[in-house]
Amino acid sequence: MIKELEKRSAQITSHLEKLMSVYDDKAPQSVCAEAMRYSLSAGGKRIRPVLVTEFSRIFGGTAEKALSCACALEMIHTFSLIHDDLPCMDNDDFRRGKPSCHKQFGEDIALLAGDALQNYAFDVISSDDDLSFEQRVRLIKCLSDAVGVNGMIGGQTIDVKNVGKPFDSELLLKMYSMKTGALIRCACEMGCICAERYDMIPSSDEYACALGLAFQIIDDILDITADEKLLGKPVNSDSDMNKATYPAIFGIEAAKAKAAELTDKALEIVSGYPDSGFLSELTKYLLNREY
Amino acid sequence: MIKELEKRSAQITSHLEKLMSVYDDKAPQSVCAEAMRYSLSAGGKRIRPVLVTEFSRIFGGTAEKALSCACALEMIHTFSLIHDDLPCMDNDDFRRGKPSCHKQFGEDIALLAGDALQNYAFDVISSDDDLSFEQRVRLIKCLSDAVGVNGMIGGQTIDVKNVGKPFDSELLLKMYSMKTGALIRCACEMGCICAERYDMIPSSDEYACALGLAFQIIDDILDITADEKLLGKPVNSDSDMNKATYPAIFGIEAAKAKAAELTDKALEIVSGYPDSGFLSELTKYLLNREY
Repeated sequence: MIKELEKRSAQITSHLEKLMSVYDDKAPQSVCAEAMRYSLSAGGKRIRPVLVTEFSRIFGGTAEKALSCACALEMIHTFSLIHDDLPCMDNDDFRRGKPSCHKQFGEDIALLAGDALQNYAFDVISSDDDLSFEQRVRLIKCLSDAVGVNGMIGGQTIDVKNVGKPFDSELLLKMYSMKTGALIRCACEMGCICAERYDMIPSSDEYACALGLAFQIIDDILDITADEKLLGKPVNSDSDMNKATYPAIFGIEAAKAKAAELTDKALEIVSGYPDSGFLSELTKYLLNREY
Repeated sequence: MIKELEKRSAQITSHLEKLMSVYDDKAPQSVCAEAMRYSLSAGGKRIRPVLVTEFSRIFGGTAEKALSCACALEMIHTFSLIHDDLPCMDNDDFRRGKPSCHKQFGEDIALLAGDALQNYAFDVISSDDDLSFEQRVRLIKCLSDAVGVNGMIGGQTIDVKNVGKPFDSELLLKMYSMKTGALIRCACEMGCICAERYDMIPSSDEYACALGLAFQIIDDILDITADEKLLGKPVNSDSDMNKATYPAIFGIEAAKAKAAELTDKALEIVSGYPDSGFLSELTKYLLNREY
């Protein structure tokens, strides 16, 4: 499974490079594209784009048809990481073991590179002639809903406005659903749209809600327990900032149990899908990473 | 003409308010929408969105059909102003006589509000059921091209990377064409797309190139000569930062002459358009503002 995930992740990385190759290295504004490439190539597991291509494949489309959309979603995710790392936000100097974008290029260029990545995501989808105009509009609507005030950016707003304040569990779950959950739901929905299986969107949403919350809870647990070297950033940086997390409110064991329960739910949904071996393995893998 | 411009500008403002009313004031993330509204309502002349609606009207569409797109473009313009004012960019505490977004809401919320405005622009276009799927895709492609690395954001990159360095006139004109020109060209092109007059795009581009450069040169002249109170920000803030401007390189008189020459060119193009009285007056007005 890990080999297959690495293969698919490499396919995403290679397509991202292709999409970024349109920008001229000799242009006076080339440092912006350089900063975009730097952060895009910092890697990560490419979970979101792999979900896009896999949902497209499972529901009768192809992975290839969903490849540009998948990369668009990864651009959005990367834009959010660049802006999240800025001094006025989380002030993180490292990301995945490398200097964060603003440490490498300066705050001004990091700001602009994040802006440009969000922008390029919409450009890439609107330019994808393999998809019908209707599909492209639906994909852009789906992505912009997931990113906006009632999605990822709203979740970040709740996060930054509540540093150091007592968080009740309801607000925490709302923040998770928006900050991390929205892009994961969007990934699965985009796959359905690429396959023109709009009927599968409600079920894929249910799967993605379970997976998204489990994924976030595991991130929180990792942040507390994981080896600094493995993560490439100081352990406990979130709790240092007095941010509320699921394990901080409910305890680590309860958090692990919740993640396991959610993954069971996700696996049950997936078991009803056609040819879902990889998706099922991926779901299990996401629960068992590194702790 | 000014009365008519004010009427049209008010129509844009009113539609912006309507588009922003979808965001719940009681939601925990509401401060993000509040910051977006704050900067959107700070005003300005709404030149870009008025161009969108007017190009649509002139070429046989209606102003109303282009209203949402026009507002999307104004959201993009406003997003760029919010991020431009941030301490890591121009570090401006005031914008149009009011505290800039980050002075009012903090840097973190200003960053997120800018991100959300860019995002909402694409959302608004993709959701506009008065336009065909093809029109929406073309509009999003047009807008994202204008905003991205080879457009506005690229122009800002050239700007921030060259503070205090000698600027040759070629680089200056390239920066202007990207930083300010791209959105103005986009405005006119979006109007053509709303009217489904794709054949008029080349001519509207030519008009917009002339208008956009004239507009930027006049901004530079105003920055040097205008009364502080009128502009609502300290005079000479750009030259304080050693930024290259057209009048700084060529002198104020040459700059005024160039702006006049470009406006003549723009007016000549407009004179060939149907029912172009307002557009012609608007073009003249933009050359003669406040100096």
